[in-house]
This record gives sequence, C-alpha cells and structure tokens, in this order.
Amino acid sequence: MVVKVYGPAYASPKRVIVCLIEKQIEFETAPVDLIKGENRNPEYLKLQPFGALPVIQDGDFTLYESRAIIRYYAEKYRSQGTELLGKTIEERGLVEQWLEVEAHNYHPPIYEMTVQLLFASKLGLSVDEKLVKKSEEKLGKVLDVYEGRLSKSKYLAGDFFSLADLSHLPFTQYLVGPMEKEYMIRDRKHVSAWWDDISNRPSWKKVLELY
Amino acid sequence: MVVKVYGPAYASPKRVIVCLIEKQIEFETAPVDLIKGENRNPEYLKLQPFGALPVIQDGDFTLYESRAIIRYYAEKYRSQGTELLGKTIEERGLVEQWLEVEAHNYHPPIYEMTVQLLFASKLGLSVDEKLVKKSEEKLGKVLDVYEGRLSKSKYLAGDFFSLADLSHLPFTQYLVGPMEKEYMIRDRKHVSAWWDDISNRPSWKKVLELY
Repeated sequence: MVVKVYGPAYASPKRVIVCLIEKQIEFETAPVDLIKGENRNPEYLKLQPFGALPVIQDGDFTLYESRAIIRYYAEKYRSQGTELLGKTIEERGLVEQWLEVEAHNYHPPIYEMTVQLLFASKLGLSVDEKLVKKSEEKLGKVLDVYEGRLSKSKYLAGDFFSLADLSHLPFTQYLVGPMEKEYMIRDRKHVSAWWDDISNRPSWKKVLELY
Repeated sequence: MVVKVYGPAYASPKRVIVCLIEKQIEFETAPVDLIKGENRNPEYLKLQPFGALPVIQDGDFTLYESRAIIRYYAEKYRSQGTELLGKTIEERGLVEQWLEVEAHNYHPPIYEMTVQLLFASKLGLSVDEKLVKKSEEKLGKVLDVYEGRLSKSKYLAGDFFSLADLSHLPFTQYLVGPMEKEYMIRDRKHVSAWWDDISNRPSWKKVLELY
C-alpha cells in the first residue's frame, strides 16, 4: 500500500516525508495550496476537520497531525529502515520528551518567525518586527538549552538519531535558509555540529531535492 | 520504586497524576511554587532546564513534559491498570492524533484563558479582555469539531478511553469550575456527555480530592 501525503510543499508534511524515507516506506503526494485556501475546501475538511496540514491516507486509514503520523510509522515499521524510537522504553521516553520540547518550546517561536518573515508578504500583510524580535529571543533561549544538552549527547534523546531530531528539520531549514538566521545555529558549537549531522542525512537531502 | 511528581498543585502535573492512578502506579509528590518562582531555582533547572512543570523522578530516571511522561507510563505498564493506548497500532495512531490535537488546538486557547482569568490577578497583572474573547472563540471552534467527532465515537480516539481523553481533564476542570465557562461544554450535547463520563472516573475524582 502506497501512503498518500497531502501538502508536500509545506514544512509540517515534510516532517512526515523525511520519516517515510528513513523507514523505507513508499509514498505519493497530493498538493494542497494554502494561499488559495484549498485547506478549507469541504473535501479537505472531511479528511482534516481543523483545515491543517498534513494528512495521510494509507488504504482506508486516515491520520493527521505530523508528529502523530511519524510516531505511527516509526512504531508500525519498527524493524524496517532506521530505528527512530530508541531501543529501550527509557530511550523512547526521552524521544517523547524531546519531541514535546520541539513541539512546545522550539516550534512556537520558529513558527511565528516563519509566518512573519516568509509568509506575511505573500498574504499581503506587513511584518510585525516586534514579534519577530521577541520570537528570535525566545528561540535563542531554547537553543541555549539545546547547546547544553548536545554537549552531553550527540543527539537530543541520546547517542542515537530519533524522531526528536528529525522533527526539527523542516522549520530549521527555513531558519538557516530563506529566513537568513543561520547565525542562531552557527553561534552554538554543539547545535551547529548537530545541525550539520542531521541535515546531511540522505533522507533530508532527498526531501529538499524533491520539493 | 515510587514515582516522584513535582508540582501537584498545577494542571499539567495533574495530567501525570491521573495517569499514574489509572495505571495503578505508586507515587509521591514534591511541591513547586510557581508564584514564588521556585521553578527557576538552580536545583529545579537541573531537572527541567526550561523551568516548566512537571518533572518526574523514578529511581535514577528523570523525565519531563507531561504528555511524554504519560506516554512513557502507559507504554511501560501496558498490561497494568487501564489500557490507555488502544489495542491495535491504528488505535494507538488515533490516540496520538488526538493527543496532538489536544496539545496544538485545544490547549493554546484554554491555557491563555487560564492565565488571564485565573493567574493574572495573582501575578498583579490586569486581565486582557480582548485576548480572553479571542481565545474563547478559538476554543469554541475546536469544541465544534469535537462535537462532530464525539457524535460518532464515545471517546476521541474511538470507543475506548485513552490518554487523548485523559489529557483534557486538568484544564477543562478549570474551564467548568473557577473560569465559570461551563456553558462551552454544556451547549454541545456530545461534548457534555463525554465530559460527564471522563470527569466522573474514580481516578480524576481522586486527583480532585487530593490536590
């Protein structure tokens, strides 16, 4: 069964796609244009009632929320491709912890910066410079904690690559690329080495090549 | 080994405590006073570098982020107490989906309302009425989706109680109690029945009795 992923042009669906590649799972994609409001079409809302990206369809199973989808596939195909949940139940606990840190500490400021710096002009809105500055400060403080953590272990959850690291790829790519805030990564030695490591994985290079 | 939970007076640690009760796991608690800023003490920051609640200590294993902790215990003691992750891998996928919906759709507006209506005055701040109104509207739209979902299944992830439902208990208790916004639950027939069901579980009654 080929997994169908909606909205590959955007960051959150890329979180799913890079996971599918790591797990060697076949997939196809279906475009959804947020600027045209295609995520508010009745047909789309039947799949994802909040109008958010991504959704996957896998036979007659439909699932949304990118971090739920990556957990589902990492668990379902545990022994296929890269092990992304750690080996022990305690390692998995730490993967869950850092996935939650990504979602609740890292994501809100970087998402705000993405909206302001990359999408506001496309939506005909002016950039809220004060909000950008505040978000940048918040993200900096989060990255300071990451620097401490990554000075003690190679990856966030331990000495193994996991969903916790993978989940950072799409928005951090915006940060170092089109947002022109690469200094936030480069000014922190261990964060910088971690970013080089995870962003050079063949799976992520493939995602960047495809979309 | 008795699990030590930090900060039982607050909502997010209660998410952990109700889970431990459902899973029949022994625990003890350690107070952390946010108003006094005890979450910024160096000793606390060694356990939770972001200064957030809760943290657990279980022997020499330390874990933070409430939704990571509940996943960890639901998995570790799968066959003890209430099964909270569903029976099949697809059911677990849906538990993960609705846990993410709780975290990303339900939590932000209800948390904003909690801060404004319950904590602003304790912190000597004035209530931002505009923000309360906006958050209430957002939460209402989320609850409309819940109403649709709960008209088709008894609980969020299907016809079984799970972490996804449990995760809603602490902040919804604030909503129907001290925030005096019970109408938001009662105006929606299926949400109302769901709330009666989950909030009357012995585990949650025990939490309310203890803290």
